[in-house]
Amino acid sequence: METLNDILGYPNRKIYQDDSFFSFSLDSVMLANFVTIRLRDQLLLDLGTGNAVIPLILSLRCDKKIVGVEIQSKVATLAQKSVDYNKLSDQIDIVNLDMKDYLTDVTRETFDVVVCNPPYFKVNKNSYFNDSKEKCVARHEIAITLDELLTVAKGLLKNNGTFVMVHRPERLLEIFDLFRKNHIEPKKIRFVYGTIDKESTLVLIEGTKNGKAGLKIEPPFLMYQPDGRMTEEYEKMLVEVKS
Amino acid sequence: METLNDILGYPNRKIYQDDSFFSFSLDSVMLANFVTIRLRDQLLLDLGTGNAVIPLILSLRCDKKIVGVEIQSKVATLAQKSVDYNKLSDQIDIVNLDMKDYLTDVTRETFDVVVCNPPYFKVNKNSYFNDSKEKCVARHEIAITLDELLTVAKGLLKNNGTFVMVHRPERLLEIFDLFRKNHIEPKKIRFVYGTIDKESTLVLIEGTKNGKAGLKIEPPFLMYQPDGRMTEEYEKMLVEVKS
Repeated sequence: METLNDILGYPNRKIYQDDSFFSFSLDSVMLANFVTIRLRDQLLLDLGTGNAVIPLILSLRCDKKIVGVEIQSKVATLAQKSVDYNKLSDQIDIVNLDMKDYLTDVTRETFDVVVCNPPYFKVNKNSYFNDSKEKCVARHEIAITLDELLTVAKGLLKNNGTFVMVHRPERLLEIFDLFRKNHIEPKKIRFVYGTIDKESTLVLIEGTKNGKAGLKIEPPFLMYQPDGRMTEEYEKMLVEVKS
Repeated sequence: METLNDILGYPNRKIYQDDSFFSFSLDSVMLANFVTIRLRDQLLLDLGTGNAVIPLILSLRCDKKIVGVEIQSKVATLAQKSVDYNKLSDQIDIVNLDMKDYLTDVTRETFDVVVCNPPYFKVNKNSYFNDSKEKCVARHEIAITLDELLTVAKGLLKNNGTFVMVHRPERLLEIFDLFRKNHIEPKKIRFVYGTIDKESTLVLIEGTKNGKAGLKIEPPFLMYQPDGRMTEEYEKMLVEVKS
């Protein structure tokens, strides 16, 4: 069923969602929040934009064009509907394409910042696809692998451009290998923990195309306090936008 | 000057230190504390044992032999003096050797657990050696590089043995590469942060020789609360010994 929702507490933005596809995830909001560089005059690209939650949020901090590429036509249509509703069609372009086909001589090396909340799970003989096609493609590496995705991101980024991704910590070793194989140097990492006594469930990572080596492990992101209340930072993330 | 000190709050253990060499570091205590596997019947080795603080602490949790290898003769002499003072010479062997020479047909693949607090800094043309020779060798990769150290560790470990190390987060990418080059699979990582709003200053890492892939990012280790008091975990680490 299609509904028009708020994006948490973010001002002046609504989003269309369809529960047979997927709702925007908090991982995407965390990713948008992890983009700490000044975006005002940067050309942005969101690979696998889904219902465009990341462009909708980052448009609050950016004056230039934001492109969201989405392979699934039904999802892209919903994203476009949200862009239109928010009167952002001058700023946000939704492109319904396989991101591999979006990399052409025209788009190559044109973006300052590329962000991506990719499918987290590899496809193997134990993969279990019980959900809608839309959900499966968003969650599993059906349409693209992480290696292919990084090759696309690298191709679309300007030299020294910034790539920002969210993923699962258990794939960290592979993520590092694939970043460097694709000449994107990991520069900043932030681990997300439910509470202080839990393993990390999410990793936020920023890399620089052809960047120098030099990794920083940023402060831990804790979501909840021991008493179950949200941490101040998590609560802020849900309602505030960096400028 | 040589002095006989307590090892924090650890019971029944004293340690000789000489301030012209170095005092035992809290990093070593954190490393000993990060060794969470059951040690009671394990054969342990500490590579670059310094004044043997790690064997002295881990002997409280282990009944079998612990070997500490130390290249610097003055430092090894001090370590032996502490072992004798604590009446642990039946359990702890201090070996005054370059660890590369300790790997022989006799010692190869004999240890269940190898721990190491290695020198953190690479030697390059900007390296600045103003301290005593003993301090420089402990801090800089003068006597051994990380790659050589991992080769030695791998050679001394039994198949599926556990390697545990402390190091600096900015070298994490290289650490992962060298672990895997030497067939030690990173399994557990813990980042240490001064306070919740600071970058990580230390990384604790456990790997398994010829282990399967599968990395966990353990809960963050915070040393201080926002008000400057020690966290409960940090305070406990300074006085308690796991069993």
